[in-house]
Amino acid sequence: MRQLVLASRNVKKAVEMQRILGEAGLDIQVLSVADFDGVPEVAETGATFEANALLKARAVCAATGLPAVADDSGICVDELNGMPGILSARWAGRHGDDDANLQLLLDQLADTPDERLGAQFRCVIALVTPDGSEHVVEGEMPGRLVRERQGSNGFGYDPIFVPDGFTQTSAELSAAEKDAISHRGKALRALVPLIGS
Amino acid sequence: MRQLVLASRNVKKAVEMQRILGEAGLDIQVLSVADFDGVPEVAETGATFEANALLKARAVCAATGLPAVADDSGICVDELNGMPGILSARWAGRHGDDDANLQLLLDQLADTPDERLGAQFRCVIALVTPDGSEHVVEGEMPGRLVRERQGSNGFGYDPIFVPDGFTQTSAELSAAEKDAISHRGKALRALVPLIGS
Repeated sequence: MRQLVLASRNVKKAVEMQRILGEAGLDIQVLSVADFDGVPEVAETGATFEANALLKARAVCAATGLPAVADDSGICVDELNGMPGILSARWAGRHGDDDANLQLLLDQLADTPDERLGAQFRCVIALVTPDGSEHVVEGEMPGRLVRERQGSNGFGYDPIFVPDGFTQTSAELSAAEKDAISHRGKALRALVPLIGS
Repeated sequence: MRQLVLASRNVKKAVEMQRILGEAGLDIQVLSVADFDGVPEVAETGATFEANALLKARAVCAATGLPAVADDSGICVDELNGMPGILSARWAGRHGDDDANLQLLLDQLADTPDERLGAQFRCVIALVTPDGSEHVVEGEMPGRLVRERQGSNGFGYDPIFVPDGFTQTSAELSAAEKDAISHRGKALRALVPLIGS
C-alpha cells in the first residue's frame, strides 16, 4: 500500500496523518479527497462513530479506487449519557460552530455538580480497501470538563476538557503533547499495523 | 391522609392532580407550595428523574410538615441515548424556553433518518411523608418524533411527539385524551393506592 486517501477536505488532517504514520516508519503518501474530482459528500447518518467512519471510507474508496481512511470523533459526556457523541460538531444545530457547541454544553451542565463532569473524547478510524476488506480502530482520551475556557490550541471542546493526569485543558497542550495522549493519536497509531501489513 | 402538598408553584398542576385523584375516588385536598411561605427553591441537581423528584418532595415535606408530592418528567430520545431526559426543560440552556428547546432538538436530529426518531415521555412522582416513608412511581408514553410542529395543546415537546397508536401529536389531543395515555396520567394513577392506603 503506497497511497491512501483520507476522507476529509481538511488538508491539515492529511498532513497530520502523514506525519504520524511517517513517525511510525510507514513510507506512504496520504492524499485527501481535495486531490480528486467528483468525490461525493457523504451524509453522516450513522448511529455510531463506527457507522459514520465506515460510511465515509467506503464512499471514498469506491470513488477513488484507492484504500481510504475516514475518522469520526467527538466528546462523550457521562452526565449526558455519552452525548454529544456523533453530534459533537453539530450539537447546537449547525455544523462546525465550535463556540456555540461548547457554550450550549456548558449551559446544559450548569446545574450539574462538578464531581459529575466526567467525559471522554473518542475517535474511530475506518480503513476500507478496494479488495473489500474493512478495519475499524479506536482511541479514547478520558478526562473531565471545566466550566471556564482555558487555552487556544486545538479546536472544538478542547478549551473545557482536562485530560486525566493533567491540570491543563487539552487546548493548553502543544500539538506533540496532545498527539501523545489524544483519542486521535491513539487511533492513528492503532492504524499503523493495519496499513503496514 | 387529608392534605398533601405538590412541590410546584404551578397551580394548574395542583388542580390537575386534584382532578385525577378525585376521579379515582380520593377525598383529598391538593395544596401547592404557593400556599405556604418560605418553602425554599430546590436545585434539580439529581442525575435521574427519581433523584430530582425525591429531592423536591423531601424538601417540601420538611418545610411544610405535610405529605409532599413532586414530579420530574421529560422526553427521552433514543437517538440521543435518552437525552434530553432530566434536562428537557433546559435543553437549550435556559429554563423553560419551550420553543428554543424544541427547535434545538429538531436541529440536532436533522441528519437522523425518520425510522430512528423513537422517543418516550417519562414522568416520575415521589411521595414523601412526615413519618419518613418514601415512594416513587413512574409513567411512560412511548412514541416518535416528527419534524413539523402540529397542534397547540399541551406544552414543551408535545407539538413534535406522536404517541404510539396515534397519528396526531400529543399537542393535538384534548386534555382528557392525553391524560388517558400520558406519562403523567399513568404516574398519577399509580400514586392513588399509595395515597389511599
